[in-house]
Amino acid sequence: MPRTVDPDARRAELCDAVLGIAATEGFDGVTIRRVAAATGASTSAVTHYVSGRAELLRLAVRTLIDRRRAHLRGVADDREPAGALRAVVEWSALDADARDHQVWLAVVVAAPREPVLRDELADFNSWWDALLADLLRAAGGRDDVAVLVDALGVVVDGMIMAGLQSDAPWAPERRGAALDRLLTALGV
Amino acid sequence: MPRTVDPDARRAELCDAVLGIAATEGFDGVTIRRVAAATGASTSAVTHYVSGRAELLRLAVRTLIDRRRAHLRGVADDREPAGALRAVVEWSALDADARDHQVWLAVVVAAPREPVLRDELADFNSWWDALLADLLRAAGGRDDVAVLVDALGVVVDGMIMAGLQSDAPWAPERRGAALDRLLTALGV
Repeated sequence: MPRTVDPDARRAELCDAVLGIAATEGFDGVTIRRVAAATGASTSAVTHYVSGRAELLRLAVRTLIDRRRAHLRGVADDREPAGALRAVVEWSALDADARDHQVWLAVVVAAPREPVLRDELADFNSWWDALLADLLRAAGGRDDVAVLVDALGVVVDGMIMAGLQSDAPWAPERRGAALDRLLTALGV
Repeated sequence: MPRTVDPDARRAELCDAVLGIAATEGFDGVTIRRVAAATGASTSAVTHYVSGRAELLRLAVRTLIDRRRAHLRGVADDREPAGALRAVVEWSALDADARDHQVWLAVVVAAPREPVLRDELADFNSWWDALLADLLRAAGGRDDVAVLVDALGVVVDGMIMAGLQSDAPWAPERRGAALDRLLTALGV
């Protein structure tokens, strides 16, 4: 009796393989052949579920971004705006999964030559900027919301890079202290 | 009459090819074969000047780092400590060559699996931390030098990532405004 396969579960497995390869080797390492090998399938079994490499990249990065958005919404909900703002930045900078941070950096690095990644990143960045601007406006007392949104984006990206410095990874307390110093200075 | 070749000039040319490939494709794309093709040489002509890929990577990254250190020393000299501190951070975050920023990100991304890059990055990071700590102490009035050094490292890395966001690159004024907001908040 043939094994029945749930197409959504199969695509989720393929996306997970893409993100695993991208985390360690970057998106240049992601090929249909490599993803097939990582999931123990043939290349034609992969292309049965996705039209090609571009769709595979898009699905995988959307998985990552949808998870990130859902988590950030959860972090923001049930807090007043100022607390939500700080919690959103802290989660993005410190608590997101380490592999997700590696993939994130890989997305930024590969985006100039991968239109699919560039589009998904642009979508996420717009959403993130709007989320921060809304929280800053709701918290009130700011006349430089646009610049603060940019500054907080810089803080999150810089914390992600600090977390990935492989020569001497910062202990959680050190990362927390640097982030706290920055957010306190910005009045967040 | 055979063309005489200055070995230092030849190695400099090879290093430049390595950095060019790393900037666009990351260090996974750097092979003796690719570097040979990029410089119009045979692979044996490349290995005549370097012992192999590891030495080639080390030479190339040292070229980048030596240039960065020399420039930072020049930026810091002839300024009082507070001005030197701000100038050093501003140059690192904003004015370094765009290709150098791309290579820098590629170094961080590849360091976990390239011991040569990890060592060179660790060396540079120690030097950078010491430079900033010296300037902060010389400027005086700080009781949290170590945390501030980390915070400024986060700011520089975050600004580098912001500069490389390819979907909608920040105009120089926007980058300058975000950096100024962060440094002013930190009292730098």
